[in-house]
Amino acid sequence: MEIKYIIDTLFALFAMTLIIFMVPGFAMLEAGLVRTKNVTAVLTVNVMIYAVASLAFMLIGYSLAFGSWDNDGMSKWAAFLFQMAFVGKTINIMSGGVSERARIIPLIFFTVIMAAIIYPLVVNVTWGANFLAGTALDISSMHDLAGCTVIHSTGAWALLAAILIIGPRRRRYGKDGKVRVIPASNIPLVVLGALLLWIGWFGFNGGSVGSISSKENADLVALTIMNTNTAGLAGAVIVALMMYLKYKKFDITMILNGALGGLVSVTAGADIFDMYAPIYIGAIGGVIVVYGVALFDKLKLDDPVGALSVHLLNGIWGTIAVALFASDISLWAQIKGILVVGIFAFTSSYVVIYVLNKFSPFRANDEEQLEGLDIEECGVEAYPEFKRTI
Amino acid sequence: MEIKYIIDTLFALFAMTLIIFMVPGFAMLEAGLVRTKNVTAVLTVNVMIYAVASLAFMLIGYSLAFGSWDNDGMSKWAAFLFQMAFVGKTINIMSGGVSERARIIPLIFFTVIMAAIIYPLVVNVTWGANFLAGTALDISSMHDLAGCTVIHSTGAWALLAAILIIGPRRRRYGKDGKVRVIPASNIPLVVLGALLLWIGWFGFNGGSVGSISSKENADLVALTIMNTNTAGLAGAVIVALMMYLKYKKFDITMILNGALGGLVSVTAGADIFDMYAPIYIGAIGGVIVVYGVALFDKLKLDDPVGALSVHLLNGIWGTIAVALFASDISLWAQIKGILVVGIFAFTSSYVVIYVLNKFSPFRANDEEQLEGLDIEECGVEAYPEFKRTI
Amino acid sequence: MEIKYIIDTLFALFAMTLIIFMVPGFAMLEAGLVRTKNVTAVLTVNVMIYAVASLAFMLIGYSLAFGSWDNDGMSKWAAFLFQMAFVGKTINIMSGGVSERARIIPLIFFTVIMAAIIYPLVVNVTWGANFLAGTALDISSMHDLAGCTVIHSTGAWALLAAILIIGPRRRRYGKDGKVRVIPASNIPLVVLGALLLWIGWFGFNGGSVGSISSKENADLVALTIMNTNTAGLAGAVIVALMMYLKYKKFDITMILNGALGGLVSVTAGADIFDMYAPIYIGAIGGVIVVYGVALFDKLKLDDPVGALSVHLLNGIWGTIAVALFASDISLWAQIKGILVVGIFAFTSSYVVIYVLNKFSPFRANDEEQLEGLDIEECGVEAYPEFKRTI
Repeated sequence: MEIKYIIDTLFALFAMTLIIFMVPGFAMLEAGLVRTKNVTAVLTVNVMIYAVASLAFMLIGYSLAFGSWDNDGMSKWAAFLFQMAFVGKTINIMSGGVSERARIIPLIFFTVIMAAIIYPLVVNVTWGANFLAGTALDISSMHDLAGCTVIHSTGAWALLAAILIIGPRRRRYGKDGKVRVIPASNIPLVVLGALLLWIGWFGFNGGSVGSISSKENADLVALTIMNTNTAGLAGAVIVALMMYLKYKKFDITMILNGALGGLVSVTAGADIFDMYAPIYIGAIGGVIVVYGVALFDKLKLDDPVGALSVHLLNGIWGTIAVALFASDISLWAQIKGILVVGIFAFTSSYVVIYVLNKFSPFRANDEEQLEGLDIEECGVEAYPEFKRTI
Repeated sequence: MEIKYIIDTLFALFAMTLIIFMVPGFAMLEAGLVRTKNVTAVLTVNVMIYAVASLAFMLIGYSLAFGSWDNDGMSKWAAFLFQMAFVGKTINIMSGGVSERARIIPLIFFTVIMAAIIYPLVVNVTWGANFLAGTALDISSMHDLAGCTVIHSTGAWALLAAILIIGPRRRRYGKDGKVRVIPASNIPLVVLGALLLWIGWFGFNGGSVGSISSKENADLVALTIMNTNTAGLAGAVIVALMMYLKYKKFDITMILNGALGGLVSVTAGADIFDMYAPIYIGAIGGVIVVYGVALFDKLKLDDPVGALSVHLLNGIWGTIAVALFASDISLWAQIKGILVVGIFAFTSSYVVIYVLNKFSPFRANDEEQLEGLDIEECGVEAYPEFKRTI
Repeated sequence: MEIKYIIDTLFALFAMTLIIFMVPGFAMLEAGLVRTKNVTAVLTVNVMIYAVASLAFMLIGYSLAFGSWDNDGMSKWAAFLFQMAFVGKTINIMSGGVSERARIIPLIFFTVIMAAIIYPLVVNVTWGANFLAGTALDISSMHDLAGCTVIHSTGAWALLAAILIIGPRRRRYGKDGKVRVIPASNIPLVVLGALLLWIGWFGFNGGSVGSISSKENADLVALTIMNTNTAGLAGAVIVALMMYLKYKKFDITMILNGALGGLVSVTAGADIFDMYAPIYIGAIGGVIVVYGVALFDKLKLDDPVGALSVHLLNGIWGTIAVALFASDISLWAQIKGILVVGIFAFTSSYVVIYVLNKFSPFRANDEEQLEGLDIEECGVEAYPEFKRTI
């Protein structure tokens, strides 16, 4: 049917474009959350991830994931572009969580390996060619629409491995066990970035339905986008309520992380939930973020952007939620998927980061961190004309 | 016709997405216009409005407005999403105009009532189920494509009520009657926000045609978007000219408000004007903004973002312009619509804000305003590392 | 075929919208690259260019370029909007390169003439009515999909003329021949702007295919967008590598200019290259930017945003690359197109700027440049509350 082919190609290009807005989305969010002395470095990492990951995926990863470039339902170039738009996100999750102390060069090396091999292998066994088909490790029956496990957890497992190897930022955890609060340097950028991510999610989840060219699929795409949005709303509202009840203050960075947690949590099942389920799922996602951020600080896992809570915990929660809220999905299939992907993503990332770290150390030393990575890594200050208070 | 259903669903999702860009649009515009000490608060309000208003509209307002979720022409979820994207805008208009002095908690309460009841009732009698049908107050013959009256005036009537109750910012109007100029703190954010709003308007007005799936409708959608854009252009150009002739300076915040005034002014009739009418309509809209801003300051109605001029005066002007520029539209139908909606929106908002104000005062006291709402309301400074001149 | 008409109209509106994101794209990029004292002026110029150029093109230029508003394949309003979205870009290229010293008034006059006459004449003989058809100067056999020559070189030839007449910024080139480095004032804005331009390019090049409503065209549009993106990726990666090898630093402004150079370089032939060619073409584009920036500084052609390298050199390179990488395109046709357009665009711009300069001098004097154009031209500081280091 030529008309279906045309419409689904246009739809994939539309969805892809929305996802690409997540590139400035992550960049602005992270640039706003870190201190001014690390802003250029974090922006540079974001741009380099998009550039390097997309090329590596085009040249190696895509074939590894899907076995072939062929596509019948839409233009194969559109199908590729849509998948390509995903790749960098897993690495953004990882790089954001080690910002303010990780060097650019080893991050770029890791980007190549993640985009060319690790992530494509995860896709292979979930959405792709599935080399595990028929084996005991086959996890293709996991329902994971747009990647609670495939994208968010995978990236966040890599982040956990990175944090364990790289360690926290200088002076983040005092000898007395106290956590030093490091405030975000530019709140408008944080808000802009989070909202661009939110919009990108419509393309991410809606596009993952794969086709809009039948009445049923048109309904499914629209419901998916609605559910995605609803979970984000619920995550924001619940965290705002928690913040107000506890502190009588509306901490906007936490509220936005609540929204992002809600958006992650609905990503596995937005296509099969009814319109009310995302309210509960997203709200729980928001609660998870609040307690998660505190938990990881207690564990001295330093994560300046809250990525472990938003993407790891909610990636897991969202994958499980599919089974809890949709009766025909097996809880065991979901858990098995989480375990297989988690063990592979964490182990492989750990090994890669460990080895890379020997040749090209990830961690900027204390003097460099004190001065800020912008000068050291980029030679460019983010705001050279503004006098600083610190 | 399945194909029409599919295309109109895709079109509604596209239009909805553009409108959602108005969320960062309003947020950046207002964050740029207020002083640095109130930036986080204003951003938090914007995020909370989107979250709370959308949920309230989904759970209560939408049914109240349209009577049912059923839709034949496109996916009912897409139809909902498109309408949902509108709701927060009315409240953004209100909240922007009371920024730098209104607390977050009462604004959130007002958001719930506006999104669940007041705005849905306005929609009910204009675009919706119309419980006034057949009565003397029936205003369904008003032509208001995308809400000069339904959105812009409604939000701005609520703002007028709020300003009357909350009062101006501390020290805004001196005892000698002088108006203290309070400059915008971040012009790039102002420009970014205004341009995102402009782009969102394409979805707002274009999508309001409701269908693109016939040759006639495809022409109508494209003409509507073109007319929308043209009025914005004309508003910007006329205000730039006025500024230059009067001050020999190009005041960019005024020029952008001129563009927004132009965009509002064409919102009621962008689908029925020829391609030249929006030049006149938008230019008049720009002129209205310039004189309106001066007028409201003379009346000591303190409105930091110029929302009364942009949305109230131009909402009225745009609704009337439909009758002036399109011969088959009754001027009386337009005026009657303005009056019925205006009286209802102003009165109901006034009562709600008045009552809310008794339980949860809107106005931050002078010490809090002096310190800035960011510390008081959010506990988060917008730019903690930048030294301030004031 | 009604359905093709509908889909192509929707597609053109989608592409147009993406291109309009280049308005905030250019605005943010330039606002980030200039010093804080010139930020408002540069933003004002960007807004005025969009407003004035679009109106002038609507009232005069479009008819001059295409002879008629008729269109069979899609809504004529959508066809116009898509073309209108292009116009301002040529002038953005010019205005960006003379920022920090050019006044707003003469830039607006130039905008009118460029959008109403010069650019439409270029379009006339390339994509339009072609009044040169059958003459010795006929260049309609040049393959220039989305304007390497028609847009990028045209704008950059005008810039070269402007730089020759206006001269460099005050104290940019010392008497000892040394080039004074003037750092960008806001790197997040630079990144945001460049990424918005990148996304806009998908609409620019993809939309220039002109139709998506057949299987072949759907493939062509998707391939065009993929190739566009790939060249941007390659430009960024090669420049990052060059920067690191030479300075051991990742200069993000240069990396982004490399990406933009890559995007320009693929703009003439993105529809006819295979998927690997843009890697080479974009990488060469990035290399050209690095050497180009050094070259123009050696020639004392002061261009604060690197527009001559990004748009002029890569506009030429991209037009030639079509013949080198696609066997059925005549190298002579491409070179002839470059020459005819270049001579016309440079000469006509030079004459217009020269004459305008007599009546309304472009160059702000040294005191005004020292104080910054924001105060002088706009009366509005960009960041009035931030203490400056300089």
